[in-house]
Amino acid sequence: MGTETDVVVIGTGIMGMASAYHLKRNNPQKRVLVVDRHGAPGQGNTGRSNAMFRNTFSSRDNQILSDSSIDFYIHVQDELKADVGLQKIGYLWLMDEAQLSRSGPYLERMERSGIETVRHDRRELKRLLPNLVTEFSSDAEAALMNLPSVDGGIFGPKCGRLDPDKLVRFYAREFLAMGGQLMLNTEVTALIVGPSKRLGIEGEPFVWQDSKVEGVATAGSGEVRAETVVLAGGAWENELLEPIGMESHVKAKKRQIFSIQSKGEGLDALFHAKGFNPLGLLPLVILPKSGVHFKPVSEGNFWVACEDQVNRPYIDLPEHDLERYQAERKYYDRSVYPILTSYFPDFKGSPVRSMWAGLYSYNTIDSTPFAFKKDGLVVVGGDSGSGIMKGDALGRIVDALYRDEEEATLFGDVPYRTAKIGFEKRDVEREEWVI
Amino acid sequence: MGTETDVVVIGTGIMGMASAYHLKRNNPQKRVLVVDRHGAPGQGNTGRSNAMFRNTFSSRDNQILSDSSIDFYIHVQDELKADVGLQKIGYLWLMDEAQLSRSGPYLERMERSGIETVRHDRRELKRLLPNLVTEFSSDAEAALMNLPSVDGGIFGPKCGRLDPDKLVRFYAREFLAMGGQLMLNTEVTALIVGPSKRLGIEGEPFVWQDSKVEGVATAGSGEVRAETVVLAGGAWENELLEPIGMESHVKAKKRQIFSIQSKGEGLDALFHAKGFNPLGLLPLVILPKSGVHFKPVSEGNFWVACEDQVNRPYIDLPEHDLERYQAERKYYDRSVYPILTSYFPDFKGSPVRSMWAGLYSYNTIDSTPFAFKKDGLVVVGGDSGSGIMKGDALGRIVDALYRDEEEATLFGDVPYRTAKIGFEKRDVEREEWVI
Repeated sequence: MGTETDVVVIGTGIMGMASAYHLKRNNPQKRVLVVDRHGAPGQGNTGRSNAMFRNTFSSRDNQILSDSSIDFYIHVQDELKADVGLQKIGYLWLMDEAQLSRSGPYLERMERSGIETVRHDRRELKRLLPNLVTEFSSDAEAALMNLPSVDGGIFGPKCGRLDPDKLVRFYAREFLAMGGQLMLNTEVTALIVGPSKRLGIEGEPFVWQDSKVEGVATAGSGEVRAETVVLAGGAWENELLEPIGMESHVKAKKRQIFSIQSKGEGLDALFHAKGFNPLGLLPLVILPKSGVHFKPVSEGNFWVACEDQVNRPYIDLPEHDLERYQAERKYYDRSVYPILTSYFPDFKGSPVRSMWAGLYSYNTIDSTPFAFKKDGLVVVGGDSGSGIMKGDALGRIVDALYRDEEEATLFGDVPYRTAKIGFEKRDVEREEWVI
Repeated sequence: MGTETDVVVIGTGIMGMASAYHLKRNNPQKRVLVVDRHGAPGQGNTGRSNAMFRNTFSSRDNQILSDSSIDFYIHVQDELKADVGLQKIGYLWLMDEAQLSRSGPYLERMERSGIETVRHDRRELKRLLPNLVTEFSSDAEAALMNLPSVDGGIFGPKCGRLDPDKLVRFYAREFLAMGGQLMLNTEVTALIVGPSKRLGIEGEPFVWQDSKVEGVATAGSGEVRAETVVLAGGAWENELLEPIGMESHVKAKKRQIFSIQSKGEGLDALFHAKGFNPLGLLPLVILPKSGVHFKPVSEGNFWVACEDQVNRPYIDLPEHDLERYQAERKYYDRSVYPILTSYFPDFKGSPVRSMWAGLYSYNTIDSTPFAFKKDGLVVVGGDSGSGIMKGDALGRIVDALYRDEEEATLFGDVPYRTAKIGFEKRDVEREEWVI
């Protein structure tokens, strides 16, 4: 049993589907097959994400990758008339003086790149968000938690929310319409390495032979042989790369989302905070402590999340079972809730309606994505929690790598040199503007 | 049950013991305790190594780290009169024209750093090694293997062999004599993270608390609490780091050594090849294909090894069982032997007397070691198979990091800026002169 194709793409997350779409679009004569263990595209970590996008990064590379991807998604929704649920509600970072001062150089860099931000002072914030607590001088619990005051805010207007499921389905639909193929409910268990020139001796490839990736093994559907394999496996990439002695520098951390039911008028008013965007909606709000942030979802419903680093394990992925990674109610109650309700007391007593967990695929070197081609294999990933907002650009880079182009053309005719995002000649800035 | 100390060092390999020695030497008032799962120092991968050293690296950092460490080992043996089995037999790289040409810039860089190398042309090599095969124009099997010819050689005279066991025992003996302590037969199972300021609330540390590493958990000997933990765990570092959300970029590959019994006069003459060093011994010889290399060990005995990259898995380390990593006889017979005997037919028919495997701890970013301090923890490693030859310098850097010194002083009064070998402000060159 087996299949033969020109290009096999592993993974139907945003990276895999954007890659497959651009590969098929630019190489219409090539057979492109996408394999995924789920029964529909985007059912792994893409579907579990916080569903947000921003172009406010410190690294020039992340600025370009996100800004051009967002432009494409806007184009898809406004011009191609395919709804991807995109709404520019904005991001609002609340900061104390020290954080504002550290942000200065990054904001200047964004300005030079044409990335718009707006600075609010404390007084303006109090006007826009009347119930926001900005100081804790007389609060013993806040003192215990060493909470920074809110001395100002940075607002990013070309940031917002979208629907990852709709976005992935857009790519999948167009990919299929062009003649691309999906092989769903099929788990890739291994990359197959073979000799570049087969001699017919048992045990090939030997050390003295050149070798290359020549396909994938699957559970239940035999081998898929291909001229090129594209690995867009997210958190699971190293599980496939390590057995063949390769490495993607990806490590996964669990990230959790808590869906909070609004209780009371205070939260309802917060949901409809005016003055940030034409939609009359609260933006995503990032608190000055421990990466706690929240956003309005639908009437009476907020999602709260937190990006803790120290002591949050990198997790082993011995099994392909995302379900094992459960959200922890204690984590919300003891670590997130005390911070959240100190700044926004309106959340006090609002119940957790549901919660879930997904995985961030950190690029542990510089928190910036990578893509490279080697020995018949193209690998893309390391988005470090911002894969959706950079997915289209990365898909175009994968296609350029496949065609051995030195430069990819991102949406909006933005050129991007492919070698700089690989590892051998890596030339990207470490991302400093993280949540 | 528990222990309290000032500094606990994890691992008695070369990194751990050199660190412990320099820590105790420069901080005599501090209690330094070294923990290791083995019953004696250096019984992990240090004791399984090929027992060689060289100062011939392309990266300036590796040049400095190795050159100063070698100088210290010579000092130990010649001036402190502690035999560490050090003999400068040299390294001889055999290369074809293309390889020689690519080496040019690295050799120039070595020359500028005062690293001596000697170039031999083919004629000189044939004089020194009469039975060396340098061309394969009429050899069908060699053509199949695509073996490069030997057009010249690069000899490194300040390279050679030493006894890792004696070296580690030197450090351990001196460390104990200064009042340092060893806790052997004790496996470290976890790093303990606690809040920087303890509040006495169950479940600490929470996300809103600062936290730090405050000790280690062991199997059988309870917890060891310490102001600073030094992790020198080699291939096992990530097993301890990942659960606390940290990362060392170390991944391990199995490396094998095959001990070959000399059979016949040809090999005996090769063993005593004249003209390379005052000892009248063959140097370590590196063949132009697949990193196959061999060295003379004792009368009638050679060790043969190979550094294959592609398709050699990074291995999982779910258990602390080095014994599981067995050498593979088929690997010698099918991958190493055909290359070895093509260049040196004298090896034909010589039996494998014994074989074993150890692990190289690759720093997957740039094949250059790292050392950094963060949150109560100092981590050192990533030597990528050259830990012994850089061990002393790294031990001094660990001590400087412990004391928050910006500069370490390596043997021979060589200054070395500690931040450049960390990850946050890493400023080292990727090593290109690899075997």
